[in-house]
Amino acid sequence: MFRQLVSATLLALPAGLAADPLPSWTDRPTKERIIDFVETVTTPGTPEYVIPADRVAVFDNDGTLWAEQPVYFQFIYAMDELAEMAQDDPSILTTPTLEAAARGDAETVLKGGEDALIEVVSATHSGLSVEAFQASVAEWFQTERHPQTGLAYDQMTYQPMVELLRYLRDEGFSTYIVSGGGLHFMRVFTEDAYGIPPNQVLGTYAESTYELVDGTPTIMKAPALAFIDDKEGKPINIERSIGKRPILAVGNSDGDFAMLEWTTAGDGPRMGVLIHHTDAEREWAYDRDSHIGRLVDGLDKGPEMGWVIVDMAKDWSRVFTGSN
Amino acid sequence: MFRQLVSATLLALPAGLAADPLPSWTDRPTKERIIDFVETVTTPGTPEYVIPADRVAVFDNDGTLWAEQPVYFQFIYAMDELAEMAQDDPSILTTPTLEAAARGDAETVLKGGEDALIEVVSATHSGLSVEAFQASVAEWFQTERHPQTGLAYDQMTYQPMVELLRYLRDEGFSTYIVSGGGLHFMRVFTEDAYGIPPNQVLGTYAESTYELVDGTPTIMKAPALAFIDDKEGKPINIERSIGKRPILAVGNSDGDFAMLEWTTAGDGPRMGVLIHHTDAEREWAYDRDSHIGRLVDGLDKGPEMGWVIVDMAKDWSRVFTGSN
Repeated sequence: MFRQLVSATLLALPAGLAADPLPSWTDRPTKERIIDFVETVTTPGTPEYVIPADRVAVFDNDGTLWAEQPVYFQFIYAMDELAEMAQDDPSILTTPTLEAAARGDAETVLKGGEDALIEVVSATHSGLSVEAFQASVAEWFQTERHPQTGLAYDQMTYQPMVELLRYLRDEGFSTYIVSGGGLHFMRVFTEDAYGIPPNQVLGTYAESTYELVDGTPTIMKAPALAFIDDKEGKPINIERSIGKRPILAVGNSDGDFAMLEWTTAGDGPRMGVLIHHTDAEREWAYDRDSHIGRLVDGLDKGPEMGWVIVDMAKDWSRVFTGSN
Repeated sequence: MFRQLVSATLLALPAGLAADPLPSWTDRPTKERIIDFVETVTTPGTPEYVIPADRVAVFDNDGTLWAEQPVYFQFIYAMDELAEMAQDDPSILTTPTLEAAARGDAETVLKGGEDALIEVVSATHSGLSVEAFQASVAEWFQTERHPQTGLAYDQMTYQPMVELLRYLRDEGFSTYIVSGGGLHFMRVFTEDAYGIPPNQVLGTYAESTYELVDGTPTIMKAPALAFIDDKEGKPINIERSIGKRPILAVGNSDGDFAMLEWTTAGDGPRMGVLIHHTDAEREWAYDRDSHIGRLVDGLDKGPEMGWVIVDMAKDWSRVFTGSN
């Protein structure tokens, strides 16, 4: 009798109430605002209703969907790869930047700014086919572990964000990554980790060439950068690749400012979200003075733009997908 | 009684037999090969089965999905636009190429090759926002008519190809345009004409800038070309934007050769299709010597590559969507 009563009650509940779509988000106003927004744009017959085809949501990756400390994981891959290449042929370390990178001295490389970072990435991300590069990255994910957490890098995705992505797709949204990270690097793990297929991953890319290699048509990765998907490049790439202005944009650094600004300036209901890294215990705490994921404009202007600032320490009951 | 019998018979027929998915294709081997291919990759439990996520089909646009004679329609738009701009300010016609374009003398412009074409397009496709540009193109489609057919340009899409696109999507394919035409130009009509949303339209594009115009975040079109989506650029752009090798590619000129080559070199069932313009009565007949849509390599090597060559005069019972 009691069991029957429970079953009847559960069946009578609307589907949305039966299960929390965001179980790793604490019951604070942040979660409420996100759910309110989704319910607003998906309720038919209201002026705020948005048809599914226009429910475009864009997400930065580094520091938004997975961690980015002590440095971007793709850069750690590049340093590891360079060290391995230098074992076979030390003469490839032709500059102090490459020498520093090969011995894993990220601090020295980062002092050289974006140019030094690009130099290291170019040296390790070119001269091979896209397939060979992605096989190398896939192996790295299998074998390497983060120095501080001991987790595989693709287990350092944020569980609350994985839930948000799934919730949005369940509600008819398209979810895109729009990241300064490398397009080919990201696609190795983004489908498994986030459920986002390759055609919805936008990122930085170098030139490619189309060649017949031993008679086989092959796309080869060239060293020269073709497009940097950061800052103003993000709205430009979104417009070019998706052809629509998103209604929801999520980022964590000033590299995402233009993307959130363009998104939330559109007509109708729009939402901008910034992940604020406030959790030195479970993750890292950084913003204004960080060399990675610097966040100044977002904190200064975000609130008056109506953007939601996620306080990681308070808003998330769990951080990494790979640990509780 | 008779009615009941008919209903029962119809109900008993597999859905595929109930209606011809390609009614504007004549019953010749071409149509049969296309349908065979689609049935092969969509029949579960066979070695040739392809999951829906990998059923990527790519189509050139000019000369493949719509007509391209006497010159690319986008170029006609550019000449019309330049003539209008020059009425307000004749001083913008700073070169003989621009002067020729403004008086509609396509032949003279085309003698200058690709550079001259780009000069005319750049002059008319930059210095304004994407929205303003697309509003101008939309108005042009509304008001202008093709000099020979009298049809609106967006009615000169090929009915057999519109049917093929729909058939493929009904069978779980994703259908992409991969064209040398301008990205922003195409997106004005491709969703209505072909059912292809903006994020599945790849094309040539110029640089964009992100600017605050009177305080409003705006994507502006700049004059410098950023990417030409032709020849080897097509497989490169497909890999970059879709992240998968297609299983079906359709084109009509040597600008599509690399796209078909890369597509059909993949493992498993693949299909390359070339539209051969053989119909001087209902459309145009041209190939090896044409200044637009030149087709030499495709005719010489296509058959031995196993590609299907569509004979427009024989394989299509109807040509334009806008006329019978």
